[in-house]
Amino acid sequence: MTQTTFPTITDKHELEHGAALAPRFDSAGLIAAVTTHAETGEILMLAWMNAEALAKTLETREAHYFSRSRNALWRKGATSGQIQKVVEARIDCDQDAVWLKVLPQGDGGACHTGARSCFYRIVETDGLKTAPDR
Amino acid sequence: MTQTTFPTITDKHELEHGAALAPRFDSAGLIAAVTTHAETGEILMLAWMNAEALAKTLETREAHYFSRSRNALWRKGATSGQIQKVVEARIDCDQDAVWLKVLPQGDGGACHTGARSCFYRIVETDGLKTAPDR
Repeated sequence: MTQTTFPTITDKHELEHGAALAPRFDSAGLIAAVTTHAETGEILMLAWMNAEALAKTLETREAHYFSRSRNALWRKGATSGQIQKVVEARIDCDQDAVWLKVLPQGDGGACHTGARSCFYRIVETDGLKTAPDR
Repeated sequence: MTQTTFPTITDKHELEHGAALAPRFDSAGLIAAVTTHAETGEILMLAWMNAEALAKTLETREAHYFSRSRNALWRKGATSGQIQKVVEARIDCDQDAVWLKVLPQGDGGACHTGARSCFYRIVETDGLKTAPDR
């Protein structure tokens, strides 16, 4: 069974330098997760995890998120085939953000629009431009 | 004067494929921003922006965030010297996340702990380990 309870650490030094994973979920019970391609380093997406999604990700080594629009646990790729094999997971200094390095399966993409990365548009002064690496 | 009002787009196709920047701030008025080193691609930090921080970032080409702990606009590096020169800004498919590619000034770091990146710990099965590239 997936462990979905994480400890809470309030000591700042322990939080930032300790060996205990103590993610700080926000008031909605979520933590931001940024996902990069383990080989190219490209940012693929930014999404959200609740405790269950984070625990399942670490346990199965496949990325799970929490869909805010569907209000449900979301195993990435369950319908699209774009399963994300987790090569490495990191947590930031104050443990309120997760970084996943993944190998996308299926067609190798991550975005529901068909783009490889969700970040396919550059913000220019006169509007958004599609990135050349889209 | 910095423009701090962005349009709202509700049409999904226009939001995802249009040329208008229409960031979707959350109920607290914030949007997640992930920042990478423009040369190495390494993720440096994940932080938050309100409309003013995003507008100032785009206008000045220096990263501005919103500090949730201090509840204030935060020009990155104002005190640490770790100014972030923005090389490129991207927005994701549904415009609820920003990606900045930056050149960190000062000592080249981004984390208040002294680490170059805030993501200096890897989540292993038996706890957090300091990354070799810390």
